[in-house]
Amino acid sequence: MARIAFIGLGAMGYPMAGHLAQQGHAVTVYNRTVATAQRWVEEYSGAFAQTPALAVLQADFVMCCVGNDDDLREVTLGAQGAFQAMAAGSVFVDHTTASAQVARQLAVAATQHGFDFLDAPVSGGQAGAQNAVLTIMVGGEESVYERVAPILACYAKMQRLMGGVGSGQLTKMVNQICIGGLLQGLAEALHFAQSAGLDADAAMQVISKGAAQSWQLENRYQTMLAGEFDFGFAVEWMRKDYAIVLEEARRNGATLPVTAMVDQFYADVINMGGARWDTSSLIARLKTKQ
Amino acid sequence: MARIAFIGLGAMGYPMAGHLAQQGHAVTVYNRTVATAQRWVEEYSGAFAQTPALAVLQADFVMCCVGNDDDLREVTLGAQGAFQAMAAGSVFVDHTTASAQVARQLAVAATQHGFDFLDAPVSGGQAGAQNAVLTIMVGGEESVYERVAPILACYAKMQRLMGGVGSGQLTKMVNQICIGGLLQGLAEALHFAQSAGLDADAAMQVISKGAAQSWQLENRYQTMLAGEFDFGFAVEWMRKDYAIVLEEARRNGATLPVTAMVDQFYADVINMGGARWDTSSLIARLKTKQ
Amino acid sequence: MARIAFIGLGAMGYPMAGHLAQQGHAVTVYNRTVATAQRWVEEYSGAFAQTPALAVLQADFVMCCVGNDDDLREVTLGAQGAFQAMAAGSVFVDHTTASAQVARQLAVAATQHGFDFLDAPVSGGQAGAQNAVLTIMVGGEESVYERVAPILACYAKMQRLMGGVGSGQLTKMVNQICIGGLLQGLAEALHFAQSAGLDADAAMQVISKGAAQSWQLENRYQTMLAGEFDFGFAVEWMRKDYAIVLEEARRNGATLPVTAMVDQFYADVINMGGARWDTSSLIARLKTKQ
Amino acid sequence: MARIAFIGLGAMGYPMAGHLAQQGHAVTVYNRTVATAQRWVEEYSGAFAQTPALAVLQADFVMCCVGNDDDLREVTLGAQGAFQAMAAGSVFVDHTTASAQVARQLAVAATQHGFDFLDAPVSGGQAGAQNAVLTIMVGGEESVYERVAPILACYAKMQRLMGGVGSGQLTKMVNQICIGGLLQGLAEALHFAQSAGLDADAAMQVISKGAAQSWQLENRYQTMLAGEFDFGFAVEWMRKDYAIVLEEARRNGATLPVTAMVDQFYADVINMGGARWDTSSLIARLKTKQ
Ligand SMILES: NC(=O)C1=CN([C@@H]2O[C@H](COP(=O)(O)OP(=O)(O)OC[C@H]3O[C@@H](n4cnc5c(N)ncnc54)[C@H](OP(=O)(O)O)[C@@H]3O)[C@@H](O)[C@H]2O)C=CC1
Ligand SMILES: NC(=O)C1=CN([C@@H]2O[C@H](COP(=O)(O)OP(=O)(O)OC[C@H]3O[C@@H](n4cnc5c(N)ncnc54)[C@H](OP(=O)(O)O)[C@@H]3O)[C@@H](O)[C@H]2O)C=CC1
Ligand SMILES: NC(=O)C1=CN([C@@H]2O[C@H](COP(=O)(O)OP(=O)(O)OC[C@H]3O[C@@H](n4cnc5c(N)ncnc54)[C@H](OP(=O)(O)O)[C@@H]3O)[C@@H](O)[C@H]2O)C=CC1
Repeated sequence: MARIAFIGLGAMGYPMAGHLAQQGHAVTVYNRTVATAQRWVEEYSGAFAQTPALAVLQADFVMCCVGNDDDLREVTLGAQGAFQAMAAGSVFVDHTTASAQVARQLAVAATQHGFDFLDAPVSGGQAGAQNAVLTIMVGGEESVYERVAPILACYAKMQRLMGGVGSGQLTKMVNQICIGGLLQGLAEALHFAQSAGLDADAAMQVISKGAAQSWQLENRYQTMLAGEFDFGFAVEWMRKDYAIVLEEARRNGATLPVTAMVDQFYADVINMGGARWDTSSLIARLKTKQ
Repeated sequence: MARIAFIGLGAMGYPMAGHLAQQGHAVTVYNRTVATAQRWVEEYSGAFAQTPALAVLQADFVMCCVGNDDDLREVTLGAQGAFQAMAAGSVFVDHTTASAQVARQLAVAATQHGFDFLDAPVSGGQAGAQNAVLTIMVGGEESVYERVAPILACYAKMQRLMGGVGSGQLTKMVNQICIGGLLQGLAEALHFAQSAGLDADAAMQVISKGAAQSWQLENRYQTMLAGEFDFGFAVEWMRKDYAIVLEEARRNGATLPVTAMVDQFYADVINMGGARWDTSSLIARLKTKQ
Repeated sequence: MARIAFIGLGAMGYPMAGHLAQQGHAVTVYNRTVATAQRWVEEYSGAFAQTPALAVLQADFVMCCVGNDDDLREVTLGAQGAFQAMAAGSVFVDHTTASAQVARQLAVAATQHGFDFLDAPVSGGQAGAQNAVLTIMVGGEESVYERVAPILACYAKMQRLMGGVGSGQLTKMVNQICIGGLLQGLAEALHFAQSAGLDADAAMQVISKGAAQSWQLENRYQTMLAGEFDFGFAVEWMRKDYAIVLEEARRNGATLPVTAMVDQFYADVINMGGARWDTSSLIARLKTKQ
Repeated sequence: MARIAFIGLGAMGYPMAGHLAQQGHAVTVYNRTVATAQRWVEEYSGAFAQTPALAVLQADFVMCCVGNDDDLREVTLGAQGAFQAMAAGSVFVDHTTASAQVARQLAVAATQHGFDFLDAPVSGGQAGAQNAVLTIMVGGEESVYERVAPILACYAKMQRLMGGVGSGQLTKMVNQICIGGLLQGLAEALHFAQSAGLDADAAMQVISKGAAQSWQLENRYQTMLAGEFDFGFAVEWMRKDYAIVLEEARRNGATLPVTAMVDQFYADVINMGGARWDTSSLIARLKTKQ
């Protein structure tokens, strides 16, 4: 049983922290909006703190899952941030999908303060967090990772050390790049099927086992055809991730024409009111003839 | 046991016709290059004819698998074409990936001549043809399809009537549209992983079960990383298919920006000498920094 | 003074044929819709014929300006087509924007019939036709071109022999390729200016003399900002031209990613009801935040 | 005659500062690399300072032209930065192409320190700077602009106040957006002409007066055909500008698909070794058939 702090009780962090408590760890949570932290304490056993710094005081492990780079800098390096109070020898594990650069910056700061840092973004969505079947991509030192791995297992189905600090974030970027072109291809295919007067549902069934198969096809084609997007991974999160991806590509020289375009297509979706829609809503901007 | 003619003994038609013979049907083959037909007769039991018209004379069912619309018109409507000699009440089943328009044109001609026509493009590649596990997407009359279905089962793992004449071709187009964006996304992801100095192999393993999963990822990422493309579905076939797709979209009003772009990227691959490379070779045009 | 037939009295052909008559040539017109031909004869002095074949009987020069490849084949090679009746030693000049392939096909047919063929697509729009300031890009034999040039001067400000048969069409394609990316860039710039709350009109004035300058910027930015597209060169004509361009590129190996994408964006415009809008209507599909 | 400081003697700043001195102003320059400042003082009459803060001590007007946002923050807000020492009532004019955000940030800081700030990016290139024919797009207060305008006239052919702080930068972004699609369209046109075996030079001449006309076509087609890119506005500058543009669009909701794609194409050019090539080098990545 470990003493763990969890910073950020959003759609992802709330159930993740819950699994830690349910597995018997002593969890202290911090959330900007205090009411959420109070609700969490009522639902699970544990404590809550008024600032990140107070939350981490006694912790062996600190998990964090906030929105983006800026949020992360605030809860770590800010005046009341966790890094002011982390215990020597403790580990800070960041589950935020953020840049590899901020991961490297925080790792340097952690070393200076005498504790360790891992970047550990996740995939699997809110359902994955609730059902403890997340995939976790970790960047950092192997010895540090080994200490943390049993804790991560509380909410992970699959986890892996990808390399040095930042590698977790880079792997998550690889994941998001795969999805963009794939979803746009799927959206175009369904849009074409509808424009051609085909039974799109039957078409998907017949092609779903071959070379066109994908998780998105199997799990999203029906909602895409029905125009239902009120669930899943939000378009505005995806654009945040693509901003990170394209900025990283600018540095490493990778050429990502379709990713860059799909990112722009998501701008259309947001302008249509779809900031919170699932990423499969790319089909919504492909209008059929009026 | 049926009397069957098979026109076109290419990479696909050769093994498909073979399965028919092996299942006990009486097969007469036609191939433009006669040597291939002779080789086929030696390998399987059957006969070969010097023209499509001669091949189909006694046939209840005629299967065809040639290259493109023009080839198809030649072997059907040409001076020595099959349509000159099809028996009344027989069925012509076209496995070529061709346009829905040529399918409709040939169906009209078939009706005038007193026989039936089905468009029945396949997916599953050469391996699928060899192992009799093709997926077949059929367009035409239900009663006609029912007569043909047991024959198609000789080389299909999955087959389905999609609607009226042309629906088979339209479904195949839907399949190809899915693949374009998906493969380009995958290529960009691998290219990014390499540019970022990540262990791309490990990254693919860790993301391969989640929202980024696809048949192409699972079956192609290793060869893509290794730069091996000497197998599979040829880029020039894909461009032929995309020409058909984009022409059809021009008529039905569908908007296919990423498909159109990937089609252009395949032009790059062909200019690099990759006309016969597998479609996963999209990664070959994404060069890392010199 | 020459005997000239003019086939196709559309937005372009009507005034072009008019200039020939006004310069003193003996003009016989043919138009599919006879009423237009009658109106033309009333407005200018001349005759009209009931079929292309009848129109060209006495002509030294035959000019043609119809819609597309199919239209062109019909008025030339059709049962009542011009090629049935062209006088030996005469010249057929095609002003239709069509493929280089149909030009080459018709040139071969013309040679067989004992007359000459030039492809001679134009740019400059309806206003250019009315004001006799068209640009004409000609493909064919130099000696033939020299006989025709003085006639073309009746409605051209600029004309030039570009090479053998088909070169006129290829040059026109080059023109259309330039315009696509240019207009989309301009549309994105105006859309950005509006989204940023900038005085877009002032911005255009200040950048209009430098490296961003273009004919389209100078002549279209105000109507683009005003959302006025009811004039100019129709989107559906542009899509026809891009179909020809992309088909030709498929043969010659050129890679045209942005042209291919803009072609798809025009599909959006058509789906919005803009088939007859000016090509500058690309901005209409870039919607600002709701 | 005014007392002026000029910070940043690069390709642009060096000749701009020179014009100020030649018009009789008392100019003190600062350049990170001191040797350049010394050379400038030898070529023109004036003084140089060791830090931005020292350079601006006596100045009524401070002009600045450095690389990007970070550089600009360093020479203004840094420990030895200009903002530590600007005289009350003076004006800081930034000619760097930078973000509207940094402009707004610096304007706030300037107000706090008791002086004024204008963003004033330029276009016209190094030749424009040398020949004093730049276009200057200014953002800020009208009364401040009026004081500065006569000074800017030393190197501007055209200048205009576009609105509040940041508007100069936004206008420059509009300029860069126009250019991207335009240049890619032009590159595709020339590439197509070459692939088609056309006389590309003749084609450009004949279309250069019509709807395809642009400054880039007139001034760049010959060097593009010749593959000469060793001059002009560098690709890596353009990518820096597009990073700013796409970041701003992310905030204001503008959809810029072709701009985003051209930005990726420039990544290809950089990977080919073309970081310093002129932006017209987009054609270099369009390879003809091998
Ligand atoms: N949702 C999903 O399906 C997936 C999300 N992710 C990634 O996980 C991360 C979290 O996502 P999710 O939980 O959905 O996001 P939510 O918006 O639901 O939650 C964000 C959390 O961060 C907190 N927070 C944000 N900014 C600050 C700040 N400046 N200071 C303190 N706390 C802050 C919020 O506090 P408050 O409650 O006060 O707002 C909240 O607890 C993101 O990086 C996302 O990209 C990864 C995979 C899937
Ligand atoms: N290969 C694959 O993985 C897949 C292919 N397909 C589709 O199946 C079709 C066939 O592909 P595949 O077998 O690989 O192609 P091949 O090139 O291997 O074979 C083409 C066959 O068509 C014949 N043919 C071509 N033109 C003519 C003509 N004008 N007259 C007579 N015969 C002609 C050829 O004869 P000859 O031997 O004389 O050249 C040959 O038998 C294509 O439409 C393709 O898109 C669909 C799914 C997968
Ligand atoms: N070149 C062109 O054609 C055009 C350029 N522009 C824009 O003008 C700006 C300048 O371009 P250009 O003159 O070509 O660029 P150069 O690279 O030639 O010059 C950059 C200048 O900035 C200085 N500098 C850069 N970083 C710092 C720093 N951190 N601290 C102090 N000084 C610094 C450099 O000093 P040092 O000499 O020590 O390196 C140099 O004087 C850019 O924003 C560019 O986008 C706009 C229009 C056209």
